[in-house]
Amino acid sequence: MDIKVLAEAIGFEYSGESVEITAMNTLSDASSSQLSFVANKKYVSEVESTKAGFILIEEALLSYVPKDTVALVCENPYMMMAKASKYFAPSYVEANQNPPVIGKNCQISERANIENGAVIGDNCTVLAGAYIGSMVQMGNNVVIHPNVTVYRDTVIGNDCMIHSGSVIGADGFGFATTALGTHVKIYQNGNVVLEDDVEIGSNTTVDCAVFGSTLLKEGVRIDNLVQIGHNCVIGEYSVVVAQAGVAGSTKLGRNVVMGGQTAIAGHLEIAPFTNFAARSGVTRSIKEPNKTFGGFPLMEQRTWLKLQAKLARLIK
Amino acid sequence: MDIKVLAEAIGFEYSGESVEITAMNTLSDASSSQLSFVANKKYVSEVESTKAGFILIEEALLSYVPKDTVALVCENPYMMMAKASKYFAPSYVEANQNPPVIGKNCQISERANIENGAVIGDNCTVLAGAYIGSMVQMGNNVVIHPNVTVYRDTVIGNDCMIHSGSVIGADGFGFATTALGTHVKIYQNGNVVLEDDVEIGSNTTVDCAVFGSTLLKEGVRIDNLVQIGHNCVIGEYSVVVAQAGVAGSTKLGRNVVMGGQTAIAGHLEIAPFTNFAARSGVTRSIKEPNKTFGGFPLMEQRTWLKLQAKLARLIK
Amino acid sequence: MDIKVLAEAIGFEYSGESVEITAMNTLSDASSSQLSFVANKKYVSEVESTKAGFILIEEALLSYVPKDTVALVCENPYMMMAKASKYFAPSYVEANQNPPVIGKNCQISERANIENGAVIGDNCTVLAGAYIGSMVQMGNNVVIHPNVTVYRDTVIGNDCMIHSGSVIGADGFGFATTALGTHVKIYQNGNVVLEDDVEIGSNTTVDCAVFGSTLLKEGVRIDNLVQIGHNCVIGEYSVVVAQAGVAGSTKLGRNVVMGGQTAIAGHLEIAPFTNFAARSGVTRSIKEPNKTFGGFPLMEQRTWLKLQAKLARLIK
Repeated sequence: MDIKVLAEAIGFEYSGESVEITAMNTLSDASSSQLSFVANKKYVSEVESTKAGFILIEEALLSYVPKDTVALVCENPYMMMAKASKYFAPSYVEANQNPPVIGKNCQISERANIENGAVIGDNCTVLAGAYIGSMVQMGNNVVIHPNVTVYRDTVIGNDCMIHSGSVIGADGFGFATTALGTHVKIYQNGNVVLEDDVEIGSNTTVDCAVFGSTLLKEGVRIDNLVQIGHNCVIGEYSVVVAQAGVAGSTKLGRNVVMGGQTAIAGHLEIAPFTNFAARSGVTRSIKEPNKTFGGFPLMEQRTWLKLQAKLARLIK
Repeated sequence: MDIKVLAEAIGFEYSGESVEITAMNTLSDASSSQLSFVANKKYVSEVESTKAGFILIEEALLSYVPKDTVALVCENPYMMMAKASKYFAPSYVEANQNPPVIGKNCQISERANIENGAVIGDNCTVLAGAYIGSMVQMGNNVVIHPNVTVYRDTVIGNDCMIHSGSVIGADGFGFATTALGTHVKIYQNGNVVLEDDVEIGSNTTVDCAVFGSTLLKEGVRIDNLVQIGHNCVIGEYSVVVAQAGVAGSTKLGRNVVMGGQTAIAGHLEIAPFTNFAARSGVTRSIKEPNKTFGGFPLMEQRTWLKLQAKLARLIK
Repeated sequence: MDIKVLAEAIGFEYSGESVEITAMNTLSDASSSQLSFVANKKYVSEVESTKAGFILIEEALLSYVPKDTVALVCENPYMMMAKASKYFAPSYVEANQNPPVIGKNCQISERANIENGAVIGDNCTVLAGAYIGSMVQMGNNVVIHPNVTVYRDTVIGNDCMIHSGSVIGADGFGFATTALGTHVKIYQNGNVVLEDDVEIGSNTTVDCAVFGSTLLKEGVRIDNLVQIGHNCVIGEYSVVVAQAGVAGSTKLGRNVVMGGQTAIAGHLEIAPFTNFAARSGVTRSIKEPNKTFGGFPLMEQRTWLKLQAKLARLIK
């Protein structure tokens, strides 16, 4: 999209020449043809090192912008980013792409729906009512059960299985709120990547990233009715039990176990081999691996047990 | 349905003339051709002002019935209402209605299912596997992702988006329980109304009303795996984060925020601009706007934080 | 499958003759043509009374094996069972079975998908996008709403209703973990049985059993977004409110009520007529019927209320 047209459409000032912007991206990942933004002073060092061609930014932070990046000054860069995101959203279906490519020895139901541009490996099973979006890439030996939905651009490794009703790659929950309390949608233009040997239960939701990818690494096991937010990374062989949820941008190390109905807040990092008892409520990062936690607020599980014993005595 | 036939079918006494009853309804909304009921003495004032043609009622409350309303005396009006509800349930599909009417410039997948009587506005997208029930009304610029289910009679405003796997308008959870412990289904004969600019995530469920409408007002944002019970009203621009739930007949004001896994009990009213921290458990109405709560039982969030600090000291 | 071929495929020692094994099963249910396993010393008495033809077992427990059962000695019988389970998994679709048999007076959408070998009773409704797997048996007067998925081998009684998006019979959450932290899937080769008059809300998941059946007894009422784990038994007329979950192998008596977001751990037994307040966390069996519990850890509801009152005074 031409930066001049975008400036006009969403209302920031730009008096330079026409330049084609190819995408929006984060400060650290944006290239010279891409548009980025900064909405918070704590990201100043990322501004200084960005390679973005254009950046939506408050006047107060102007001095941090590198010389090869064009600053687009505005009062509310986060809101501007939300408004701009719409113009970079891909179409829901890529009608003009090639018909899907199906590997050898696959069992694809005539009642599955596979959009153009999708590529499916060998020995895959896709059952009735499953939806495989445009440009989805699927490895070998994958099983997609009935009525699964895989949004466009999702990447699925080898030996994965997804059970019925699960939704992979729907929009993350993102919007900018105006002073009047109304919301402007942030289009979620990233995708979901499942590495090899990932199994996902039924009616689970894995949201796509705002930019980049939500990533489930090799050997992950997800149960039913689980929520994985946008831009999460779930480490290798991690296990997420039913009705648990992980909010956006949180990263789990390998072999983390989340008990049933556990919730982890956004933007945290969880050390490898951490265990969360059922219904843990996690609002801080865990640095040290190999420990077991429980409760809300979170504490070591043995501390939680001690506290509950103490409370039990309180009422005697 | 003829009141005489109904009396015979479900077993209440009626010795008057044949009268056609067109629907069941609440005491306050029922008209002279409709049947209502009262199951609790606290609704006596609504009995006195009802315009219902017929009312299922205990003998003890007979004196409150207005003169234009025919009292149908029975021992257990709630159970009678449950039994009667079945006879007013619409068919699952209206085969004899006109074919669906589709607006201009729509992208409707050949593998979407749109039942007769549905009316779809302009510039709408309905993707594969989506189900749009009979008599559904949809505004302009609506996007329905794959494998969404919209039950019959749902009304969807302009600029709405519903992500995959969500179910709008399924039966609310209602039944009358006999003395033996068995359950008689209360057919949920109302609908769901989404006003303009409502976005609903994936695998969320919004139940239809028993009578009348479950209502999501303008600009509401619902995340994934959320449950909205029958007859709820969700106020303008309210935000409901993943895995939260609202039980039946609860009303949220505008710009209420429900953190992840929060639950609100039924028949409550929540003031505008109320914030609930993640996993709040709400069992009472909130009268004063603009406050932040947390915990279960619910308290102001700062009180909850203080309490947790105190408990942490207990175990030192 | 020939026991010699299986031994070679998954790596346990067997020097006997070729014998066809027809299935895997539990110690108590296995017959002389079936393979069982023991992974824990506490099941020694079940080993002594098993009628299994073959048993995967540690050397230390060899002395308990009955004389008609062939012991297959290995270091990690649980892992061996996991590896073996794959060879007994039925195909996803039985292409070679007879076309489905549909009873009288049914309304089956042309866009429903009914696999071969399924048998549907009289007066049934199956709406668009619903998936009825191979060999499913369905009674009379059943209603299957759009986009429901019923996995193969499920048995559905008379007068049942399943709302949209629910998934009946997907794999339970089972795997064996290696010393390196990787997981080997335990194929879930059992099924789900719904007795008569069961109603299931929308986007609920009921997992199939590892062996045998997950069972929902007569008159059970399940709300939306509920998780029922593999091998559970839900007693007659029990009521499970939205977003509650029951972990694997737990057995509920009749007329148990689980409030919203309640969770019950696995392998427990809950006495009839037990009530759990919303968000109860249940980690022990309940022996005495007819009591009301709440909280996590679980206590009698009146005790929980007392405790909360005490805590409220703490912060004054």
